[in-house]
Amino acid sequence: MSQKSPVDNPPFAGERMSDTGLDADYNLLVDLLDGAIGLDDITDIHPADFSDQFEQLTPEQRERLITGAPQIISPDILSYLEDEVVEDILPLLPSDQLAQAISELDNDDATQIIEEMEDEQREEILGALPSADRAQLEASLKFEDETIGRLMQREFVASPEFWTVGSTIDHMRATGEDLPEIFFNVYVVDPTFKPLGYVNLSRLMRAPRAMLLSELMEPLLAKIPQEMDQEEAAYLFQKYSLISAPVVDASGRLVGMMTVDDIIEIIQTENTEDILALAGVSDAGLTDTAATVFKARAPWLFVNLLTAILASIVIAQFDYAINQIVALAVLMPIVASMGGNAGTQALTVAVRALSERDLTPQNAWRAVRREAVAALLIGIVFAVALAIIAYVWFGDTRLAGVAFVAMIINHVFAGLAGILVPLGLKRFGADPAVSSSVFVTTVTDVIGFFSFLGFAAMVLL
Amino acid sequence: MSQKSPVDNPPFAGERMSDTGLDADYNLLVDLLDGAIGLDDITDIHPADFSDQFEQLTPEQRERLITGAPQIISPDILSYLEDEVVEDILPLLPSDQLAQAISELDNDDATQIIEEMEDEQREEILGALPSADRAQLEASLKFEDETIGRLMQREFVASPEFWTVGSTIDHMRATGEDLPEIFFNVYVVDPTFKPLGYVNLSRLMRAPRAMLLSELMEPLLAKIPQEMDQEEAAYLFQKYSLISAPVVDASGRLVGMMTVDDIIEIIQTENTEDILALAGVSDAGLTDTAATVFKARAPWLFVNLLTAILASIVIAQFDYAINQIVALAVLMPIVASMGGNAGTQALTVAVRALSERDLTPQNAWRAVRREAVAALLIGIVFAVALAIIAYVWFGDTRLAGVAFVAMIINHVFAGLAGILVPLGLKRFGADPAVSSSVFVTTVTDVIGFFSFLGFAAMVLL
Repeated sequence: MSQKSPVDNPPFAGERMSDTGLDADYNLLVDLLDGAIGLDDITDIHPADFSDQFEQLTPEQRERLITGAPQIISPDILSYLEDEVVEDILPLLPSDQLAQAISELDNDDATQIIEEMEDEQREEILGALPSADRAQLEASLKFEDETIGRLMQREFVASPEFWTVGSTIDHMRATGEDLPEIFFNVYVVDPTFKPLGYVNLSRLMRAPRAMLLSELMEPLLAKIPQEMDQEEAAYLFQKYSLISAPVVDASGRLVGMMTVDDIIEIIQTENTEDILALAGVSDAGLTDTAATVFKARAPWLFVNLLTAILASIVIAQFDYAINQIVALAVLMPIVASMGGNAGTQALTVAVRALSERDLTPQNAWRAVRREAVAALLIGIVFAVALAIIAYVWFGDTRLAGVAFVAMIINHVFAGLAGILVPLGLKRFGADPAVSSSVFVTTVTDVIGFFSFLGFAAMVLL
Repeated sequence: MSQKSPVDNPPFAGERMSDTGLDADYNLLVDLLDGAIGLDDITDIHPADFSDQFEQLTPEQRERLITGAPQIISPDILSYLEDEVVEDILPLLPSDQLAQAISELDNDDATQIIEEMEDEQREEILGALPSADRAQLEASLKFEDETIGRLMQREFVASPEFWTVGSTIDHMRATGEDLPEIFFNVYVVDPTFKPLGYVNLSRLMRAPRAMLLSELMEPLLAKIPQEMDQEEAAYLFQKYSLISAPVVDASGRLVGMMTVDDIIEIIQTENTEDILALAGVSDAGLTDTAATVFKARAPWLFVNLLTAILASIVIAQFDYAINQIVALAVLMPIVASMGGNAGTQALTVAVRALSERDLTPQNAWRAVRREAVAALLIGIVFAVALAIIAYVWFGDTRLAGVAFVAMIINHVFAGLAGILVPLGLKRFGADPAVSSSVFVTTVTDVIGFFSFLGFAAMVLL
């Protein structure tokens, strides 16, 4: 989604915003469905607020609303709605309204809507568009999902380096309509349309009219290839505090631009993916039914069942020990649980550091060493605590000793697994957030039970 | 950090970037320390790249580098470095260099550096500044950490509504130096300096020179109070796809602006806080020593020790049952582990939905109901699985039945705790990411062990 055009009938949004923005405790669209207010009462809602409220409705409420008045879904609202909601409502919208919306929106927003359509509807809508618009959209759709070619805006402003400030401004005034809705930089290009630098509008505007763009331009900090993954592009924006960046094709020619507002969406999507992956959830949305929740969560729970059985098999090897000393069954979950949590802590820190690129091949060895030392330190402290508890509870020095040793061992394994597993996954090209948790908790469960029960069998029996 | 000024000797960064940006597999600063290259060889590194490489050095390497050549830490580099690193190196930098850097940087960047100083150094540097700069910084420092008053930029561009496009542009050309380095919007103000609307530069530039700003301006989607928490402001930027927003004081007068590049930093900080909080880590940075790692992780591990003991006490109540049927000790961790993971899944989804404001008082009840249905579904599926495993393993129908029932009960409690705990914490004004995990895993451990062992004692003995 690129910077939005203003609403057609812009209200002064200040007052209303505090109601519908931060403290959303009522929903105008529900009032509308109830007949308490009319269509006229919602014309001055900002598309972003409308979208938020619309997303809060049940699928049935959405259908009723659209069937009654499809025109309330303006082009801007479509670009603000979450992809899953767009996918749901597209079949409900009249084709002519959709074709109109697609041709009004900037290319990047239009692409996001087109890609949610069923093949048949997409063909119909593309066929109804002016051929220039269609060609642009088809060019975007040729790129993989989550690549810049798919996400970028194909409208941008470029000028040759021998133009002056004055001629550039005059040219923009004359072009008017065909420029992007909003832009921040003018890209300076060579005769083969390769970008040479950029001029921020706030500098262009301050510069003397006679100044050449080649004198005013600043170097480009990033030229983004069309094939680049969105995550890499987001990293470049963050790193260099970019507001917009030129996108180039394989021969280095300028073909589009990315702007920071789209990047924020990408950053949030990637963050959500990471945070959910760490908890073993493959996908989540508020439009989910219980069945899709099941599909998103069952796979990792299934893997966890297998690893829990593995841990149980370890316990079963020592059933004779538990049979003689039931205190072992009482204490063993503490060792496993502490290890599991310590491992998860180390893992989460490592995954975050990898995604922020603070943890690199350069400093990995130092990070592993520090993790090992910290784990030993943590292990000793909590081993002492557990030993005291075991002694006070069961009055058995040797049992306390077993708990002490097992706790230290499990913490060290937990810390090492917490950092080595994500580093290893990354090395082999896998996403460290996705499957690390399973590996790490398997290690801490198995090592936790094995070391505690194994030592107990050796020492106490 | 606001949009950076270009490097003083800007290289064409394209080539170098691919080496030092995305694929950081070597460090020029290490070469510099080794004497393999000289100071001249690093002058064309972008401050963002320099900062990344500098952060990778050990504290000893950093000290050696700065002691040898303090001037390599340019003002821009200071604004790119992570806060903890800035804090570490400030005592190493000469006062006159620091005072110079502070007065060169935009107000928001300067504030971030000043706030990392020890009191004594801060007094010295503030005393060395021109009084206007000092007053601005002192005004920012009066606001709480993580509020907009502390973070905003106090340089901005505002014009009265009766000005024309032409006079506004001419005024900007004449003012030159005193404008912010980079800006995107001109704020239109009334005679009491209250913001009325904004004009994006790309629109200002295209409009006829005679047009009044009052005709061209667009409504403000957000006016940010100085006291607002950074997280709320970040939400407004995301929601309305803002590039910059005006900041107002208690009487509604324009006092500063926030720009989107600062917001990206805030978003990443908040995401990191959430992701770490869910894993029970209070803070993390690559500059941490093992001791600070201990401090960041031990508190939650201590709480976990207490809850694990609680679970053990539950187990201990049924030691006579375990004594008679050791299979209980073998199977009980499976029930607890599955519940724990299912609870963490539900919790993570809920915490993310709360922070993205997709989960609101309006739809909370629906979300809870869906979570309960999903938990029941998941519980039944895995209860069947566990029952089969228990039967195959131990050949005991009644044991399988006990496992079946306990698994369903624990999954339902896990799902409900996963959503109700963060909703409850949020309702009482606490951060749902911070302590939810403890509550949820306590519930799943205690319920898991209690239901499994309790039913076993009732049915099997």
